[in-house]
Amino acid sequence: MKTGTFYGVGVGPGDPGWMTVQAVSVLGSCRRVFAPKGKAEGGSLALEIARSHIGSQAEICEVIFPMTTDKAALSKHWHEAAEQVAEFLRTGEDACFLTLGDPSLYSTYVYLLRELKVCLPGVNVVTVPGVHSYSAAAALAEFPLGEGKNSISILPLDDDLTPLRDGIRRGDSLVLMKVGARLGAVLDVLEETGVLDGAVLVQKAGLAEQRIEKDLKKLKSGPGDAGYLSVLLVPGKKK
Amino acid sequence: MKTGTFYGVGVGPGDPGWMTVQAVSVLGSCRRVFAPKGKAEGGSLALEIARSHIGSQAEICEVIFPMTTDKAALSKHWHEAAEQVAEFLRTGEDACFLTLGDPSLYSTYVYLLRELKVCLPGVNVVTVPGVHSYSAAAALAEFPLGEGKNSISILPLDDDLTPLRDGIRRGDSLVLMKVGARLGAVLDVLEETGVLDGAVLVQKAGLAEQRIEKDLKKLKSGPGDAGYLSVLLVPGKKK
Repeated sequence: MKTGTFYGVGVGPGDPGWMTVQAVSVLGSCRRVFAPKGKAEGGSLALEIARSHIGSQAEICEVIFPMTTDKAALSKHWHEAAEQVAEFLRTGEDACFLTLGDPSLYSTYVYLLRELKVCLPGVNVVTVPGVHSYSAAAALAEFPLGEGKNSISILPLDDDLTPLRDGIRRGDSLVLMKVGARLGAVLDVLEETGVLDGAVLVQKAGLAEQRIEKDLKKLKSGPGDAGYLSVLLVPGKKK
Repeated sequence: MKTGTFYGVGVGPGDPGWMTVQAVSVLGSCRRVFAPKGKAEGGSLALEIARSHIGSQAEICEVIFPMTTDKAALSKHWHEAAEQVAEFLRTGEDACFLTLGDPSLYSTYVYLLRELKVCLPGVNVVTVPGVHSYSAAAALAEFPLGEGKNSISILPLDDDLTPLRDGIRRGDSLVLMKVGARLGAVLDVLEETGVLDGAVLVQKAGLAEQRIEKDLKKLKSGPGDAGYLSVLLVPGKKK
């Protein structure tokens, strides 16, 4: 029997209106919707965003991908999830996997897909691109992310802020991800290098708690934590 | 009288299915749709993508932004377009401006918006984010653009390929825009630095002439031109 098609669906960063027409159409017809979440007791944000577009025919199946950097533990979870997806596709019905933002960018989907292709060689896959969190942030803040000959660097930060300093030195427009508890240190670097003016922090774009902060000096006396689902945009030097 | 709202609408890179629900809703209700095009005799690709979603109530107005690097000429066109938009908004009706891909990223919208805010201070603006051409390209090619701690650099190329060499040296995932007639030189750099394997060229994603080429060695004997609307993705070094 023919196996079903596997759809990787980007649901965008928050507002259900930022989902694509293709994503809505896939959700309206898939028999099973897999939704990732970080822990057993929590909900899936991707599912919350997509919920109103999921057809009544669909069974929803939450899959846990723990927030850990332990590669062996993650691998095991990806493999188990892929087995679950493969088992369903073998019934001949289509399934989709939801991802926040865009499936190709810093998403669990990439790892799951790799495993799925091992479990079910030749599986028919359609990846549905989505709106990035930083596109939504730039739209909300009316922030021109790329202009003329400016390069853009997307930096998932860790404690070593050298890539941030290097990006500023190059004059790139910067998209800073995973700022979180490093906010204080990041603001110090932006101020020291003269790019704090014009930088913007957008938290939880498109969600109820959305916040857009264009005066980052204010945050210097704050708690120093940008929280989860925040993105910091730094303007590039005109070229 | 209250002036109308100005919507900057990203229509994505090609397939109308990649438009967002919000974009479709705006197009269904705006009284005037401004669509950019490069020359008087040509059509507007953004308009072609959006056309099936534009309501019957809408007047379509094409605006010419010539493909030139002459800043004074461009400035004049932006100013004239902004005046046209402002004049319409003063009637109290809403208008939108279409952009290929996402409005915040290398788009004419950014310049138009700046001028509009001068012509019509306090104008109510809503920017509708869109899917990037490189997200669509990554989805079509099943290319994991960002993984783990990898940075991503988006490089609008010119004849100096130093930023490309620097990006490869850093081990970033690379999105190369404006490859065009530089394709031959770019492929040489990718081969020389050992990143040709795994790189992907996607041309006209979501359009009838779409082409996905995963074996870039083949292109080395080709015409050396990637054409308009192409994006080249280079994998980053695992970190």
